[in-house]
Amino acid sequence: MSGILYGIGVGPGDGQLLTIRAYRLLTGAKVIAVPVKKYGESSRALNIIRETVDVAGKTIVELEFPMARQKSVLEESHKMAARKISAWLDQGEDVMLITLGDVSVYSTCTYVLDKIRQMGYPIRIIPGIPSFCSGAALAGLSLAEGDEKLAVLSSLGESSEIEKILDDFDNVVLMKAGRQMENIEKILEEKGLLKNATVICNAGMEDMYIGPVDGSREYGYFTTLIVKKGSREL
Amino acid sequence: MSGILYGIGVGPGDGQLLTIRAYRLLTGAKVIAVPVKKYGESSRALNIIRETVDVAGKTIVELEFPMARQKSVLEESHKMAARKISAWLDQGEDVMLITLGDVSVYSTCTYVLDKIRQMGYPIRIIPGIPSFCSGAALAGLSLAEGDEKLAVLSSLGESSEIEKILDDFDNVVLMKAGRQMENIEKILEEKGLLKNATVICNAGMEDMYIGPVDGSREYGYFTTLIVKKGSREL
Repeated sequence: MSGILYGIGVGPGDGQLLTIRAYRLLTGAKVIAVPVKKYGESSRALNIIRETVDVAGKTIVELEFPMARQKSVLEESHKMAARKISAWLDQGEDVMLITLGDVSVYSTCTYVLDKIRQMGYPIRIIPGIPSFCSGAALAGLSLAEGDEKLAVLSSLGESSEIEKILDDFDNVVLMKAGRQMENIEKILEEKGLLKNATVICNAGMEDMYIGPVDGSREYGYFTTLIVKKGSREL
Repeated sequence: MSGILYGIGVGPGDGQLLTIRAYRLLTGAKVIAVPVKKYGESSRALNIIRETVDVAGKTIVELEFPMARQKSVLEESHKMAARKISAWLDQGEDVMLITLGDVSVYSTCTYVLDKIRQMGYPIRIIPGIPSFCSGAALAGLSLAEGDEKLAVLSSLGESSEIEKILDDFDNVVLMKAGRQMENIEKILEEKGLLKNATVICNAGMEDMYIGPVDGSREYGYFTTLIVKKGSREL
């Protein structure tokens, strides 16, 4: 009988925000599959679970997901990941594929989970805390209340698109906003929404920044912007 | 010195999806504040934590949040909740206010947290797994990949509004969709999106239903609909 592939969301970067289910599965696991940008590079997801899970003696299988946009490169990396995982499943071992944040929200792992499912193996998904929820918690903001509408975007398309979403939604979360911050700042300024925006940068890390958009800052990969239009009247 | 109010998301209805942080805080707590619809009624949030946290000997403070829409009634319930909590904080006790799912996503507790913060007490927010993430996990769906846009709505306004969002977004989550399912089904049918919709009803409960929209079913309060337009090409 083949093993089961578990897709496990390990949360936003804080070992204490692992769920009890994830903790127990990972503690009991023999094989943990870990996404890396390049073989041999450290994995943030692995570092998160190390805070609470003893990984000594476990087999860590690195899956290389290069930061590429070419379909052929991505396709090849997903195929290779599926091959590595299925080899373990064929031996009857369960594999724990860990991923930052939640599994369903902008995770590369969903491609691999789907591939493995299409190959006929059983999969299970264990949700994790999405980074925008922990960001909102750290910033002390609500993302949606009552009848409010929430939009979540992971990458900014045309400026006109982001303008439209800011017009249509009460609350907007822009993930991975770092590289486009200059453009976002301009749009927010034009709409008079700069005061409604909170940046959450490198949440949980030493150089964490939570505060207003500040054009003089450098914003890295882990930058989330929350724009909250609604003002509450109690 | 006053105590701290912790707003703790306990996840979607599965004690194993509590985070380690929530588990530790609740295990160490003396006072747990629990939202109920009516005094004396059972609290889903409390039942969730009971699965893993021993609450014997702890003080359980019920906060009544009636299912009303009148501003004055809601305002009165938030004031009363703040009064009860601040009485404990004044004695130097920390209070753990538990809430279903995540704290920032459509939680009644945010009103109370804000009120307590305005009164000058310290607050901390501990995020939890939002119900739509666990719903997606149970249904084996991704909510957003790559450049996809995700919209989350907790209540349906005009039909024209939901039509617009279905046009503009790749993936749409409709929470608390139960009462409006007939209208939603009509809209989805007109747009040819019925096949893209998955209902997650009473997730984790005995009468859980995950599957296509089925007009012959009764849908209760804990009904989430995920509409996923994007089809992945690998």
